[in-house]
Amino acid sequence: MLSKANIQHIKSLEHKKFRQEYGEFIMEGRKIVMELINAPGPFRIKKLYLEEGLPGPAMTPEAEYISAKEMERISSQTTPSGALAVVEIPKVPVALPQKGYLYLALDGVRDPGNFGTILRLADWFDIAAVYASPDCVELYNPKTVQSTMGAILRVPVHYTPLAPLLEGCSLPVTGSVLVGGTDINNTHLPSEGMIVLGNESQGISHEVLEHIPVRLYIPAYRRGSESLNVATAAAIICAAFRRNLPPLPTQPDI
Amino acid sequence: MLSKANIQHIKSLEHKKFRQEYGEFIMEGRKIVMELINAPGPFRIKKLYLEEGLPGPAMTPEAEYISAKEMERISSQTTPSGALAVVEIPKVPVALPQKGYLYLALDGVRDPGNFGTILRLADWFDIAAVYASPDCVELYNPKTVQSTMGAILRVPVHYTPLAPLLEGCSLPVTGSVLVGGTDINNTHLPSEGMIVLGNESQGISHEVLEHIPVRLYIPAYRRGSESLNVATAAAIICAAFRRNLPPLPTQPDI
Repeated sequence: MLSKANIQHIKSLEHKKFRQEYGEFIMEGRKIVMELINAPGPFRIKKLYLEEGLPGPAMTPEAEYISAKEMERISSQTTPSGALAVVEIPKVPVALPQKGYLYLALDGVRDPGNFGTILRLADWFDIAAVYASPDCVELYNPKTVQSTMGAILRVPVHYTPLAPLLEGCSLPVTGSVLVGGTDINNTHLPSEGMIVLGNESQGISHEVLEHIPVRLYIPAYRRGSESLNVATAAAIICAAFRRNLPPLPTQPDI
Repeated sequence: MLSKANIQHIKSLEHKKFRQEYGEFIMEGRKIVMELINAPGPFRIKKLYLEEGLPGPAMTPEAEYISAKEMERISSQTTPSGALAVVEIPKVPVALPQKGYLYLALDGVRDPGNFGTILRLADWFDIAAVYASPDCVELYNPKTVQSTMGAILRVPVHYTPLAPLLEGCSLPVTGSVLVGGTDINNTHLPSEGMIVLGNESQGISHEVLEHIPVRLYIPAYRRGSESLNVATAAAIICAAFRRNLPPLPTQPDI
């Protein structure tokens, strides 16, 4: 049985202020919670709520079965999927980029859906880590967590000012721009390096742009077309960087 | 001065039921409204609300200046941008695909943000029209309109059952699948045809898949990575289809 204080505590974690105060955030959904339990990563489960009657993981000291009604009260989803974890926000030191790997750096990406979708892409395209400028949306925003579709468990995210990071970066640094720069289809793209993506409406800030020697753009094919959403631009760029590498072996046709 | 009935009418258009009843929808934002006024397309403005004091288009019989307070009452945005149009939902007959053009067909795309983002992409990559299965989200949903960023004015959308459309289609038909099929990087992609994209969690329905002779997949580069969001998959696929075509001349570096 959930106490009123418990419910209030969990609901408070929908707000950044309380996530920071308690050092906790929410992961919700049966699939992501199952992955979380098995994940080797830095995320420690403080409390796990499972809906009665649903097949779930074996009981652990953190797990508690609650009624569907109770789940509805703590869930932030319109259709609760039956599993919700309260997770400790890990304190991971910022790791510097390493030779041989590909990284993304996000300069002021504000929309949680975009940020989460980019993390999901980063996972798909084997990006070693994502660096986020301090004015990016918070990783632990419930909408961000949700739209990573589990990639939050596999892709490290480091919040750090980008200008010094790029200045000290020994890997090739490229950035996506809307005007000027090199057509992404007509240039050699390295298999290691740092790819910078900018804010939804302003693009990459001047301060960061100064540290980007190679600027890439995605060509448009219709006059009057406006711009691309940052997550779709990230998709096209990541696919272009990976195009010439051997992908994973595919699963058989089912 | 806006009457209470006016305000209620405008707010009612946030709901599908009333959009269908009145045959009207809302476009909001100074940029999209300016584009709407100059658009050659099928969209007829029934009423145009502009915030007093903002530079706006020349007055037309449909235009009315209202106060910032009034704009707040009719706007569905947290920060109203000062222009809101009530637009007639056009009755456009379904146009069949034509030789020489590239089309998208969406099978059950449910999320308004995804649908709108795909329209924005379609504009960028010069897709002639988008076909949407009847169970796709509604084009006139405010969130869909918003995320098209104006592309709704340039890309025709036709709601129609996809199986008969594909069956009668004389252009090359391809579809994006998660398993099986051909690596998109290792196959010739035609400059005309129909590209089918599926639902966010189910992919392309069996009924529609039967009519897709060429199935394409986007290779993954990390084991355990889950799947791609449908709008990011659309981005990668559209970019791949256009890669070998000459893009528009670029603007000078600014």
